[in-house]
Amino acid sequence: MTRTVYVNGEYLPETEARISIFDRGFLFADAVYEVTSVLGGKMIAFDGHAERLKRSLSELDMDNPISTEDLLEVHRELVRLNGIDEGLIYLQISRGAASDRDFAFPDPDEVKPTVVLFTQSKPGLAETVRPMKVISIDDIRWGRRDIKTVQLLYPSMGKMMAKAAGADDAWMVEDGYVTEGTSNNVYIVKDGKIITRALSNDILHGITRAAVLRYAEEAQMEVEERNFTIEEAQNADEAFFTSASAFVMPVVQIDDKKLGGGEPGRVALRLREIYLDESLKTAV
Amino acid sequence: MTRTVYVNGEYLPETEARISIFDRGFLFADAVYEVTSVLGGKMIAFDGHAERLKRSLSELDMDNPISTEDLLEVHRELVRLNGIDEGLIYLQISRGAASDRDFAFPDPDEVKPTVVLFTQSKPGLAETVRPMKVISIDDIRWGRRDIKTVQLLYPSMGKMMAKAAGADDAWMVEDGYVTEGTSNNVYIVKDGKIITRALSNDILHGITRAAVLRYAEEAQMEVEERNFTIEEAQNADEAFFTSASAFVMPVVQIDDKKLGGGEPGRVALRLREIYLDESLKTAV
Repeated sequence: MTRTVYVNGEYLPETEARISIFDRGFLFADAVYEVTSVLGGKMIAFDGHAERLKRSLSELDMDNPISTEDLLEVHRELVRLNGIDEGLIYLQISRGAASDRDFAFPDPDEVKPTVVLFTQSKPGLAETVRPMKVISIDDIRWGRRDIKTVQLLYPSMGKMMAKAAGADDAWMVEDGYVTEGTSNNVYIVKDGKIITRALSNDILHGITRAAVLRYAEEAQMEVEERNFTIEEAQNADEAFFTSASAFVMPVVQIDDKKLGGGEPGRVALRLREIYLDESLKTAV
Repeated sequence: MTRTVYVNGEYLPETEARISIFDRGFLFADAVYEVTSVLGGKMIAFDGHAERLKRSLSELDMDNPISTEDLLEVHRELVRLNGIDEGLIYLQISRGAASDRDFAFPDPDEVKPTVVLFTQSKPGLAETVRPMKVISIDDIRWGRRDIKTVQLLYPSMGKMMAKAAGADDAWMVEDGYVTEGTSNNVYIVKDGKIITRALSNDILHGITRAAVLRYAEEAQMEVEERNFTIEEAQNADEAFFTSASAFVMPVVQIDDKKLGGGEPGRVALRLREIYLDESLKTAV
């Protein structure tokens, strides 16, 4: 089936969805994005994604071309047009196509942002728990990982390094401490305590991360936000990551060290259950 | 006049030059580029740019979709079609448009790279010497600046910071030492000696840089490749930068410190003259 996608106000067959070669998203990676999960045809944590999108745009002095209400309408229309029950909606906003290539930002009165959305159908998304093997790699990304830009070449390279090593993902390490996975926030559990890096410009401020930590505290679990090393992670009782598309996913191997005998951890599975239950309640 | 541009084997009016929203250059900044100067209708340092392009592609495990001979033909055809006497040719190759968004690289047998080229007419390019004011900013780019990728958001932001400060460009500083300008290699001159940072993954391996250093040594000028600080630069006799589009350009102010009484330096102007003379001899 040909997907229907959204480009600047139009609903188009995916094969006809095109942007100018002068789009700054293509020439300068001057674009931000969000990925929202769909469960039961409804958007999970929509408000959180809409808020973070606004912040990303604002940090880059980019005009917000679409209201949160209109954005929700586009999400809903794409879900309807493509018959999505479980899956993802990808949204990207670039600074638009200037009349020529120039490092300097174009005048926002003349050049309007490009807005692109498309769906990805993922049947079984909520049910799928795949225990993950990760490798550790150096984190050489730019310094503003709190802005969700499309500068994703290194995370892509990291995924390929993981694949080449027979693993599923890579945990990135900077100055001796783990920052994140290639597209997720990471956690370890030791003696019942959940440990995850504190928010800063070094990591993405995960929408799923915020929800999971809130639910963990509501469930009387102890949470500590601080740096940890790969060695500490390898000696933890369990490990997991969170993202909008994977929810809470157990990690059972870090480099050549198995955790919890290679079985998903109890805390991770419990948090996944709570997260899915709770976020379905506020799905829109 | 509507430019004619090149997209994947076709010569098209710029208004019709479009790429898929699934192009990895748009979604992941998974693309590399080159900018070649045109003087008198001929390409400057074409071989150097073609060689660096091959290296960038190779470092990213991307197939090279076009031979150097064919690439030169496309450059020449664009120069002819657009009547370019002095200007630039921009070339970008992305990993192509996979059928869906996925961090992992697509199978190169299924997804072919996207090749885009367009011209920019710049009458007076060779004659224009504009003494530049620069500000210093932190260098927070990723760690592989030797690969000429389109992850150019921070250099764009740097240009805007410079503009806001009433300057022309920004020199980036990492661990106390100057790396580069937003799109150029940088140099200072002290007691007749030309000082510039040595090549590494920290800076682009400028084609113009290599040529200028060679010409400087042929002209018996002393060259030292080592790190320098903003303070050392502010106390130098002169400063300049090199790039494919600006050739050799004098810098007369760094932050609030004027150099050489605000006048272009003798060494910079002499190197510009030599560079233009010599590179015109090998233009193709």
